Amino acid sequence: MNFKVLKSDVNSSARTGILKTDHGEIQTPIFMPVGTHGAVKTVSPNELKTVKAQIILGNTYHLYLRPGIELINTAGGLHKFMNWNLPILTDSGGFQVFSLARLNKITNEGVEFQSHLDGSRHFLTPEKSMKIQQNLGADIIMAFDECPPSDADLSTINSAVNRTKIWIERCSQYLAANPSIYNWEQTMFPIVQGGIFPELRKQSAEDMIPFAKCGIAIGGLAVGEEKPAMFDTIEFMDSILPQDQPRYLMGVGTPSDLIQAVSRGVDMFDCVIPTRNARNGQFFTSFGKVNIRNEKYKFDFSPIDENCECEICINFTRAYIRHLFNIKEVLGLRLATIHNLHYYLNLMELMREHIQKGDFQKWSHQYLNNLNED
Amino acid sequence: MNFKVLKSDVNSSARTGILKTDHGEIQTPIFMPVGTHGAVKTVSPNELKTVKAQIILGNTYHLYLRPGIELINTAGGLHKFMNWNLPILTDSGGFQVFSLARLNKITNEGVEFQSHLDGSRHFLTPEKSMKIQQNLGADIIMAFDECPPSDADLSTINSAVNRTKIWIERCSQYLAANPSIYNWEQTMFPIVQGGIFPELRKQSAEDMIPFAKCGIAIGGLAVGEEKPAMFDTIEFMDSILPQDQPRYLMGVGTPSDLIQAVSRGVDMFDCVIPTRNARNGQFFTSFGKVNIRNEKYKFDFSPIDENCECEICINFTRAYIRHLFNIKEVLGLRLATIHNLHYYLNLMELMREHIQKGDFQKWSHQYLNNLNED
Repeated sequence: MNFKVLKSDVNSSARTGILKTDHGEIQTPIFMPVGTHGAVKTVSPNELKTVKAQIILGNTYHLYLRPGIELINTAGGLHKFMNWNLPILTDSGGFQVFSLARLNKITNEGVEFQSHLDGSRHFLTPEKSMKIQQNLGADIIMAFDECPPSDADLSTINSAVNRTKIWIERCSQYLAANPSIYNWEQTMFPIVQGGIFPELRKQSAEDMIPFAKCGIAIGGLAVGEEKPAMFDTIEFMDSILPQDQPRYLMGVGTPSDLIQAVSRGVDMFDCVIPTRNARNGQFFTSFGKVNIRNEKYKFDFSPIDENCECEICINFTRAYIRHLFNIKEVLGLRLATIHNLHYYLNLMELMREHIQKGDFQKWSHQYLNNLNED
Repeated sequence: MNFKVLKSDVNSSARTGILKTDHGEIQTPIFMPVGTHGAVKTVSPNELKTVKAQIILGNTYHLYLRPGIELINTAGGLHKFMNWNLPILTDSGGFQVFSLARLNKITNEGVEFQSHLDGSRHFLTPEKSMKIQQNLGADIIMAFDECPPSDADLSTINSAVNRTKIWIERCSQYLAANPSIYNWEQTMFPIVQGGIFPELRKQSAEDMIPFAKCGIAIGGLAVGEEKPAMFDTIEFMDSILPQDQPRYLMGVGTPSDLIQAVSRGVDMFDCVIPTRNARNGQFFTSFGKVNIRNEKYKFDFSPIDENCECEICINFTRAYIRHLFNIKEVLGLRLATIHNLHYYLNLMELMREHIQKGDFQKWSHQYLNNLNED
């Protein structure tokens, strides 16, 4: 895998680049739709290509529980299992263990948890996370880190930074001793922790950079902290992370978050917002959100967004989509998901174009003004 | 609208034909997917075209309750509302009133019922059914009939036959006095009732034939009677219905039902079986049913049907689809629906080809033998 910066914006830290993987090239900055369980909820792999998804994310925790690693391994990896032949990134499983499962015990050895599905007991370690992700066959494997909540105090976050350092060493040792079982390259991204504390971020970055071969992640943000603190932290990270590797901001965010993070040097994103909000009837547009359940759209025969070129806006009206949500027709969930993913991926494409053109900052100010976001 | 028989089988009553409507031609025999509420559940209009649907059915009862006729009328009719530009047939609403709503009173005037959704009271008459269907804009409008249950005795069915006669006259008078509000032709199909009693079927056919301009329906079957009685009744209808009009057997059926009914002169079908069973994980194939939730498919990386050319069988494995059903991922419901509709519509195409070739009877015996249906 390799990464090349194509163009750096003169007025901000925004840049375009190409990340090459054995499953294809990724134009950055890029947004990665979340394919929780081996499917981006409601949509097919072909539809993901229609909305120009270049890479998707799979959740190790979910896939480990269902359908289990043996099945995906027997299928020839997650790409084959779900019929997605472009790049895949898998998370480490840690975040869901911390946020979704019943957490029993964290030690330097690993994390003991109970499944949110059936209460069954599991033990996840850095080695096991690497092994699972190798078996899933992801192009990009995420390091196993400890992600404390945003309201954790400095000493808790400090301890997470220290543990994350111990764990990255074990992740790295495991990967060195156990080469990929598939015939494509799998590259690990270490994850910088440290909450919103610059000194801890600096420490964690120094811990992680030696393990970053072609990409590094900013973890532990968008977990409840204030937006200004999040952007300050991203800006600080921008100043200390290597320029020649892609930076992946985990779990972020809204359209305005993406624009502001790109201007602070972020190259990759994932988030459930476009897909989850879609299933709640919330559509993203260049003029802000459309909550399609609203009564005012009952007789509205215009598309979700007049200026949008997605197949949903070409083919269906607000009145019809609202009706689908009213009758709980699952087709509605899909139409919303396709529109929102198109919106997100089109937004990334717009950013790439304007960085390339050299007017990213001017464009982004205008765009943010029109967004009218809460 | 007009209908032309293209080829009649010499060994059976099967025939091919073309039914021309203002929204396009329909090759018969044909199966009509059921689009309950302005959507064939889980699939998009484009996907319906991919599986070669030529006409779909809309349910007047459901559409009348949600989203209501005013909205669909304002949209410019059901075709426009749901973005389906091929022919649509709507039922009269009567069947759902009898089977789904709380029925309060049936008189010669009409049917008083309460919505299954909110208990609201409604009164449906032949005139109102015609008016609603005109507003929906269906190419084929179904007469308002009384459909008694299969266990009704002869005198109950006799009374339904008599009431259906009174009602067809009122339907016809309403349509004569109130021309279509859209710029396409809307043709009413009368519905023959009479249960499994030949004398009542004969009476009802005589009542209905004068009102059949370009199509007639066989109602009151597949409501619980034994299969031999159903086929005997279809055979009897074949002997007395006009040859030069399409015959629509309402609410039928399984793949083997379709083949046997086509051999008895039926041209059109609708049924929820392919779509409803799909959502329960039951796939139709040329060798019988595949219940994908079955444990034996867990590691089965073959397609649902090796010989099927639908996009689902080309792109996905049994193991993956089973996983989607296990995690309750709605993508699974859609993949199953697309496969089953493809199967049904491909089966109709096969029948048309073999009628055309002249070997329908030989082919159908072989096909039924391989089906292995319960």
